[in-house]
Amino acid sequence: MNLRMTSYILGLLLLFEGAFMMIPTITAAVYHEQELLMFAVIALSCMLIGFLITRWKPKNKSLFPKDGFVICALSWIVLSVFGALPFVVSGTIPGFIDALFESVSGFTTTGASILHTLEGIPKSVLMWRSFTHWVGGMGVLVFIMAFLPIAGGRNMYLMKAESPGPSVGKLVPRVKTTAKLLYLIYFSMTLIQFVLLLVGGMPLFDSICISVATAGTGGFSCSPEGMNYSPFCLTVITIFMFLFGVNFSCYFLLLQKKFKETFTTELKVYLGIIAFAILTISLNVRHMFSTLSETVLHSSFTIGSLLSSTGFATVDFNEWPQYSRTLLVILMFIGAMAGSTGGGIKVSRIVILFKDMLNDLSAMIHPHQVKKVKMDGHTVDGEIIRTVHSFMTVYLIIYAISMVILSFDGLDLTTNFTAVVATLDNIGPGLNLVGPMSNFDVYSTTSKIVLIFDMLAGRLELFPMILLLTPSTWKK
Amino acid sequence: MNLRMTSYILGLLLLFEGAFMMIPTITAAVYHEQELLMFAVIALSCMLIGFLITRWKPKNKSLFPKDGFVICALSWIVLSVFGALPFVVSGTIPGFIDALFESVSGFTTTGASILHTLEGIPKSVLMWRSFTHWVGGMGVLVFIMAFLPIAGGRNMYLMKAESPGPSVGKLVPRVKTTAKLLYLIYFSMTLIQFVLLLVGGMPLFDSICISVATAGTGGFSCSPEGMNYSPFCLTVITIFMFLFGVNFSCYFLLLQKKFKETFTTELKVYLGIIAFAILTISLNVRHMFSTLSETVLHSSFTIGSLLSSTGFATVDFNEWPQYSRTLLVILMFIGAMAGSTGGGIKVSRIVILFKDMLNDLSAMIHPHQVKKVKMDGHTVDGEIIRTVHSFMTVYLIIYAISMVILSFDGLDLTTNFTAVVATLDNIGPGLNLVGPMSNFDVYSTTSKIVLIFDMLAGRLELFPMILLLTPSTWKK
Repeated sequence: MNLRMTSYILGLLLLFEGAFMMIPTITAAVYHEQELLMFAVIALSCMLIGFLITRWKPKNKSLFPKDGFVICALSWIVLSVFGALPFVVSGTIPGFIDALFESVSGFTTTGASILHTLEGIPKSVLMWRSFTHWVGGMGVLVFIMAFLPIAGGRNMYLMKAESPGPSVGKLVPRVKTTAKLLYLIYFSMTLIQFVLLLVGGMPLFDSICISVATAGTGGFSCSPEGMNYSPFCLTVITIFMFLFGVNFSCYFLLLQKKFKETFTTELKVYLGIIAFAILTISLNVRHMFSTLSETVLHSSFTIGSLLSSTGFATVDFNEWPQYSRTLLVILMFIGAMAGSTGGGIKVSRIVILFKDMLNDLSAMIHPHQVKKVKMDGHTVDGEIIRTVHSFMTVYLIIYAISMVILSFDGLDLTTNFTAVVATLDNIGPGLNLVGPMSNFDVYSTTSKIVLIFDMLAGRLELFPMILLLTPSTWKK
Repeated sequence: MNLRMTSYILGLLLLFEGAFMMIPTITAAVYHEQELLMFAVIALSCMLIGFLITRWKPKNKSLFPKDGFVICALSWIVLSVFGALPFVVSGTIPGFIDALFESVSGFTTTGASILHTLEGIPKSVLMWRSFTHWVGGMGVLVFIMAFLPIAGGRNMYLMKAESPGPSVGKLVPRVKTTAKLLYLIYFSMTLIQFVLLLVGGMPLFDSICISVATAGTGGFSCSPEGMNYSPFCLTVITIFMFLFGVNFSCYFLLLQKKFKETFTTELKVYLGIIAFAILTISLNVRHMFSTLSETVLHSSFTIGSLLSSTGFATVDFNEWPQYSRTLLVILMFIGAMAGSTGGGIKVSRIVILFKDMLNDLSAMIHPHQVKKVKMDGHTVDGEIIRTVHSFMTVYLIIYAISMVILSFDGLDLTTNFTAVVATLDNIGPGLNLVGPMSNFDVYSTTSKIVLIFDMLAGRLELFPMILLLTPSTWKK
């Protein structure tokens, strides 16, 4: 482990986190809230600590592969711990574990909340809560890399550890330029959504909060009335939920007018899943709405919300018929595309698993034919396939262990089962007691800690959190 | 496809099935039941059809690998269809799909029933129902191979397709001798259990039915009072459920006094799981029983029943606390050891997945170290690991599709979720509406057909049934 480099990056992280906290500070100033002082103090403290730590500059900037994972895991933990302070200090969420749950849920773009109501919560705190989604969506290390050359040539490992999906999409050869491009697309899309929501008559505050939450595929709402917006605004949100679930390299290709390359296998499958889900769920819930357009709107919204792992809810889909509930749970597992801001197992992993299985079946029929898994004309590297399989194994193990620990709280199986998928896949709401109209405060502190772990593990694609806990990572 | 060879084997199968039906025929004679004629007619018809088909002898006995899978899948379908006839003709289960469900459930050693009560059902029918477990447990093709040389040297493919577990255990070089040895151990153990139950005061009829059902890790009970037996008998059943979940090659090694080799990694993990489960579940349900011994007995019985995929129930574990329910569901997924008569994903697959994942994690820390998966001192073949991964993928796909189709019946998620694991892992009872005190008649005909497929797929370790449905299997 390169300890000095690690602490240097954590220092930079705190500097940036302090800077990010200027946004709720300004919000408090605009709305004349007494939280102004608190946010200013916490923001400045973060920056001061960050500044002090970064004074201790690393001589050797080289990182080992495992360092990438460890730094990534530690960064997210530090980010979440400091991000929880405003909740505790403002008294919104007095308990630290509860506040950490909310903060982790924010940064990991899960959107699972332990709050019973948003009534009476200061707008600056709500702004910070929503804004954490935006910070976590594209990744804070990617953000740092976009502006600072933190590791000579080797910071690919960091990006690899923080980016969602089995293969990291370097858009251009230089990591720094890639990071910049990613944030440019991210920021532009957020801005477009924000303008469209404003045009649609949504209040300014809500437009900002909803846009940043959608962009990060988070799911915290920002108003005690929930998602009580006009059909136009809900349509805009629906479309952007689907868009933020798309691999950002598709947008990069689109900007270069490489239309053919844009439509990758993964994108086609993603669109196919969306079409199938909207069609069948709309039919299944048709009787619950008065008009067809309303049916399609709420079905699409819910599907977009769960598939992209955003987690907004306009209706209580927990009350929907079993077919819809079952399909929604399956969509929660599948998740968004790799290289998007969304969570879940990821469409590309599912495609790789499926193709690898077909090859294997074919090998059973014709034992002497050896086929390789191909995607979009390229052979998928054997190591990527291996890692996808390991991902699934780790996923199932974390799933089983989480279910066992959660079971001690005595809640029903469906609640626990969907609570784990909702956190591990960074979605937010589950079914039954953690359904869209409920909250995660039903769980004990132990269970909340498990779910905090699951959210972090899910956002960082499992391995960084697991390697952080593996003894051999810490051996020389 | 070698069609003549295929039909020849199916003919042999019917000959043997007719012979097996002599057992309920004799039962009907002993108890002076009117079903005597029916059983005799069906048994003779089976034998006659089998005899006629086998007249058309194959000239070329060679089989391709895919033939093994296809013959295996077809054999089990034919076996189940003819095995369902006594239920239909006797009027016990008038509907054919219902009767097929019961028959498939029997042969696949699932033990899931659509019967609401056993009250008034003739003993001969109950005997046939239980005896199908014994036939299906070790495998009917293995049985045929033990007595007839059906394919010159190539019948390893058949055994491979029918035996549970990732790697088939050839005990001795010759397949025929291996098949004989397996049945010898199987028959002896069944006999010992039968004698012990008789000694324990269990009625003769029940002793036979329970022994054959335990041996096959089935789970049909044979009395309207259910498992209402003495603690001694329940202890015997518990022990034998655990024993029939052990890889039969362990017994072979034990008989050769190779004690060290007997304790394979898989066996140690299997025993470890049992110890952990008994300890923690006993603690968890302690308050539900009056004495400690009663607690341990019923906990062990339930764990043995679900881990070995037998499916007997002495108590309604659906009413147990959530920790026990959750752990039991996880045990249902894990299942018994490879090469046993039990179902589930199998302990050896879990061990392989786990070791492969650890290697992969280690490769992330040290990218230049390539490790191989080792078990009991031997390197696990790369192809086996590949197949284990494909098994998991197929398993999850079948699971998801089954859940979606079942959802149309409108039952709750836990019922559907555990109904699929109970059938796909050949266990029998699940939770909620398919709990141990309920039955599978809650489902529609479509769902029953899906569950029939799941039981067959589960018993044949997925691939034969999938390959049967794959178009390229049928191409020249």
